[in-house]
Formats: sequence, C-alpha cells, structure tokens
Amino acid sequence: MSRVYNFSAGPAVLPEEVLREAAADTLDYKGCGMSVMEMSHRSKMFDDIIKTAESDIRDLMGIPDNYKVLFLQGGASQQFAAVPMNLMKNKKAGYILTGQWAKKAYQEAKLYGEAVELASSADETFSYIPDCSDLPITDDMDYVYICENNTIYGTKFKTLPNTKGKLLVSDVSSCFLSEPVDVSKYGVIYGGVQKNVGPAGMVISIIREDLITDECLPGTPTMLKWKTQADNDSLYNTPPCWTIYICGLVFKWLKNNGGLKGMQEKNEKKAAILYDFLDNSKLFRGTVRKEDRSLMNVPFVTGDEELDKKFVAESKAAGLENLKGHRTVGGMRASIYNAMPIEGVEKLVNFMADFESKNLK
Amino acid sequence: MSRVYNFSAGPAVLPEEVLREAAADTLDYKGCGMSVMEMSHRSKMFDDIIKTAESDIRDLMGIPDNYKVLFLQGGASQQFAAVPMNLMKNKKAGYILTGQWAKKAYQEAKLYGEAVELASSADETFSYIPDCSDLPITDDMDYVYICENNTIYGTKFKTLPNTKGKLLVSDVSSCFLSEPVDVSKYGVIYGGVQKNVGPAGMVISIIREDLITDECLPGTPTMLKWKTQADNDSLYNTPPCWTIYICGLVFKWLKNNGGLKGMQEKNEKKAAILYDFLDNSKLFRGTVRKEDRSLMNVPFVTGDEELDKKFVAESKAAGLENLKGHRTVGGMRASIYNAMPIEGVEKLVNFMADFESKNLK
Repeated sequence: MSRVYNFSAGPAVLPEEVLREAAADTLDYKGCGMSVMEMSHRSKMFDDIIKTAESDIRDLMGIPDNYKVLFLQGGASQQFAAVPMNLMKNKKAGYILTGQWAKKAYQEAKLYGEAVELASSADETFSYIPDCSDLPITDDMDYVYICENNTIYGTKFKTLPNTKGKLLVSDVSSCFLSEPVDVSKYGVIYGGVQKNVGPAGMVISIIREDLITDECLPGTPTMLKWKTQADNDSLYNTPPCWTIYICGLVFKWLKNNGGLKGMQEKNEKKAAILYDFLDNSKLFRGTVRKEDRSLMNVPFVTGDEELDKKFVAESKAAGLENLKGHRTVGGMRASIYNAMPIEGVEKLVNFMADFESKNLK
Repeated sequence: MSRVYNFSAGPAVLPEEVLREAAADTLDYKGCGMSVMEMSHRSKMFDDIIKTAESDIRDLMGIPDNYKVLFLQGGASQQFAAVPMNLMKNKKAGYILTGQWAKKAYQEAKLYGEAVELASSADETFSYIPDCSDLPITDDMDYVYICENNTIYGTKFKTLPNTKGKLLVSDVSSCFLSEPVDVSKYGVIYGGVQKNVGPAGMVISIIREDLITDECLPGTPTMLKWKTQADNDSLYNTPPCWTIYICGLVFKWLKNNGGLKGMQEKNEKKAAILYDFLDNSKLFRGTVRKEDRSLMNVPFVTGDEELDKKFVAESKAAGLENLKGHRTVGGMRASIYNAMPIEGVEKLVNFMADFESKNLK
C-alpha cells in the first residue's frame, strides 16, 4: 500500500488513522459481529455512534444548547432549497455573491421568493470578498446568506458581514471544523461533510432552535422540513449510517489533535508555507487578494496554460494528486484540509521550487 | 472476528466477500493511493466506478435503453415527494395502501394534489395484498402507486395491479434485486439500497425517459427534479460515492452468483425452509396470507408477548440478531435478504424447533 498526497477539493483526504480503524472494523464493529454498514439505525450500537458523534461535534465547535445538530442527506445543494423553504416567512432574503456556490444558492432561493444580491465580487472573478460593513439590508429580509469559504476561488470571509441584526445563514462546507467558530453569531451553519470532515453523502446543519418550526413554505417536502429531522434526532428515515460513523471517527481524531484550535494552528502553518512560496516565486502566483485568502483552498497559476498543464501532469507523476484547478477556472488549486499533513505541503512546495528552476525562462 | 447471522430489516446483512474487498481497499483503492472515500467524484477512477455500477445493474435487471438509472440521496422517503412533484401533471394519482410506507407516500402526495386511495388492506393489519384486478382508476390519474414488498408486514405483490393503462410507480426497497423483474411494465421503479443492496444513504430510481421533463410542479427543489439528476448522470453535485462503490461490488457479487434468477432460486429455497417450519409449528405461526407472503421479510408470532420477548432474547444470545418485529407491530420478523446464507435460515429454524420443544405447554 502506498498513499499519495491528495490535494482534491472534495471528496478529499481523510486522516489515515481514521481509515485504518474503519478498515479494521469493516466486517465486525467492536465485536458485535457485523459491519456498521449492516447495522439497524434503530440499534443500540448505532444509537451510541450517532449520539457520540453529535456530542463530539458539540464539544469541538462549542455549540450552544439552543442549537440543533442535524445529519441530513442531499448535500449543500439541497440545503439551497431547504434554507428558503424553512426560513422565508417574508419571502425575501439577501445573498452575498462570492462564487459559484453562493450563486447557486441565490438562484435556488429565487424559486421561493425575492432573493436580493447584497454584494458581489463577480467583477474580478470572485478573487476577493466584498466589503460587507454596510450592505443594503432591508427590514423585511428573513436572513442574510453567505458561502463562508469559496472552494473554487480560494477566498474566505475573515470578518462576518454586518447583517444589521438579521439572521446569518452560512454554508461552511469547505472550512468546516478548520478553526474555532462562534456558533452564536449564526442562525444556521451548514456544510457538506465531503470536503473537510468525512465521506460524501451528508450535510450537517446546525440550526438555532427557534428557527425550526412547522411554518415552512407550502409544498415543502417532509424530508426538507428541518422540524421533521429535529423532532426525530435525524432518524426520521434511515440516515447515511456509514458516513455518520466515519465523521464520528474524524471528530475523535480532531479532539485527539488539539481540537479546532489545534487545527487552526496547523492549518495556518500549512497555508503560510504555500502562500510564502507563492509570494516569492517568479513563476507562480496566487490569484486571491491577500487579506481574503482561504486557509483551505489555494488557487495559483503560472500565467501560461501549457505550463500549468505540464505542472499538473508532472506533479501527479510525483505523487501529488488533484492539483488541477476547477474546471470553470483553470490553473492549479491545492486544497489543504485538516487531514493534509504538513509534509504534504512541504513536498508540494519543494516540487514547485524544482519545477520553477527548470521552467523559468 | 466472528460474524453473527443478522436478520435486520435494514440496514441489513451484506455479502461477506463484498465487505472483505472493501476492507482490503479502504486505504488504497486498486493502487491509486487513496480511499474511494477520498476520491474526487469527477476523477477518472470514480467515473469507472459509477459507470460500471450502472452498467452492471442494467445487465442484472435487463433495464431497457429508454430508462434512466439515477443514484439519489434522501431515501425512499424523499422520493415520496419527488414522485408527485415530477409526475403530477393532472394533480391526481391513485395509491394502493398495503402498509406504513405506502401510506406515507400517499400522505406526502396529498401535499401536491389529489391522492386517491384505490385499495387498502388496513382492515386486517396489512396482512394481505388487496385484489387489484379492477380498481377505481380514473382517466385523469397521472399514475398508480404501490409499495411492492412491505417490509413491516411481510407481504408482496405477486401480480402487479391492473393499472388500466396508467403509469405504474413502484417502491421496491425491500425486494430490490431479489428476483427477475420486467422493468418495461413500470414507469418508475425505485428503492432505498439499505435493505437488499448496500449501505444506507442512497436510493436508485429507474425512470422511463419520457417521464423525465422540466414540467415539474412549481417550487420543486432543483435536487428533487429527476431531470437535474438525469442530465448530469447523477453527478449534479457530489453523490454518495462510497455507497455507490459498495453497491457496485454487490452488483458484481450478484452477477457472480447467478444474477437475479440465481437469487430468486436461493431466496425461494430460504423462504420455503422458514415458511414450511411455520406452517407445521405448534408454537409459531406466520402472520401473512399464504399467497401474499414475501420472500424477504417473514413476520411470525407465538401469540404470547412474553414468549416472543423470551425468543428474541435467547435467539440473540445464540448469534441470531435482530429478530424483533417492527416497533409498530411486535412479535418477530426474520429478514432474509440476498446476502443471508441458507445456513443462517437453517440455524434459525433449528433454533426455533429447539425453542418450541422447550416452551410448548
């Protein structure tokens, strides 16, 4: 067995310890004689798995008691509909457009009411976070929506927008559990787990309890009502048990590795290695405004498409996988999530330096 | 490692060979240096996995070219909404009520139009399949809906209803891939995979192409539109990659074990062992009308609640797990899906015979 350094934007690298434990227990989970994949979701064993997972993510994020944690299916894309269906009492909400995923959420919201563009960085290919200190938020808006870390473009909100007292809804898919967070500043935080947490097929939604009501828009599917899921502790129907189990192992791994504070330190160190190199390179350059740079997703280019292609091909051959930029953007992107070891980033930077010395004209 | 015989109704037993292969490849799938859980869903490797899975289920079921195969999230419960949202052009459909899941689908459909009860077996606790040869189907109905195998009650449609030319929509969650099927008789066949196919977290919907249109009900979430998923070959957003992978391994296992004809023979043999015992027992009896008995889910009782409890406890101690009946029904239930070996059923019947000799007054 030989493992590569996997810079995929998602699904993405998982901690090797977690995969080893999962592999060892695949046929027989803790002596119970069956796999977690075969276990009734109503069994005592699975009840322990899901309750422990919830309790651990509550510890990690410091989730206040008046927030529910829901394990849901359909990814962030399904929450793009669930958010307005559950929250649009006045049928009006504000969206800050910082990339493709924020735009998709905004377009989906238009199916259900008036979605207002409050700010956008589309003018410079989403390479920065717009000033959100004084947005045209009106009193009748049900919420303000952001995509907090933009996987494709490599930007991150370093300061949350001034929502003028309105509810903040945030998609944190690509920065989930990457640093400490003050949950009480949000109405809803949610993220697909397949980037920084676990295997694809689940979204975790953390929702302030008073926002979970029966007053959804008419025609909201029972499965998309947060109340259905909250009333049943995410067991209204069969949940994605294996994904919950693996996420639970990742939560334990995070707790054993310094929690979110520990992750932040490690992530800042990793990002600094890469950004420092980019800032001093004569061949490569980062594409994002410095103050808005993501710790998780680092896009960069040489400015020469042919050279970019060559870089992607040669880095792959060197065991550095998935460095190609998103299909809508081009260039390169290194996603350096929690589970990417520092050695992976060092190896990448060494490879880039070597490539630069060979290819700089 | 010691494996039990797991009679869970779902999530349920998987083939041991499949679990062994998955465990061996958990950290490094076929030498690519990463887990299937870490793989981009847009990668060549995952593309092979999902395309092979689709091609294998097409072979197994003989799915005609004019049907799409969609790998979706949210379980059957989410399809309860997707079915009317995608199909209710006239806002009217007929439902045959043969148990809890058919009832839930019927209630969900009422959110979107007129759902008509065409027949029901509620009068005798859903212990039989009603006569469906001449139902009050009207010309303006968009479809006729059934739950083909009723997991909780242990009944199965042995003959499909006469739909009088109307589209048939069938939830096959608990009899999926258990015997050959003529797909061309259906408009839509769908099933959650967590009973007879793979790990929880996915539903496979097999849909006649002409039924996949943009003409959904207003307010249908993009993720619930079958057209979104069909146009993107189930990759509109990140799919449940691991679940697709395991299902693919199960499809290979089915092909290597005689396909659906081979499964039918094995399943008939297993069911016969158990039903023959029940028919001759002086302590136990099956609860379902003989001609409507499921090959997959076999409910039975002693008629004495205390004795039922004793049976469940003692069978568990003997390595026969999850024989307790559904919480809404009581008694016992043995789910004997494809992956349950004949030896498991033999061991169960031997245990029942022994229990009978010790407890018959």
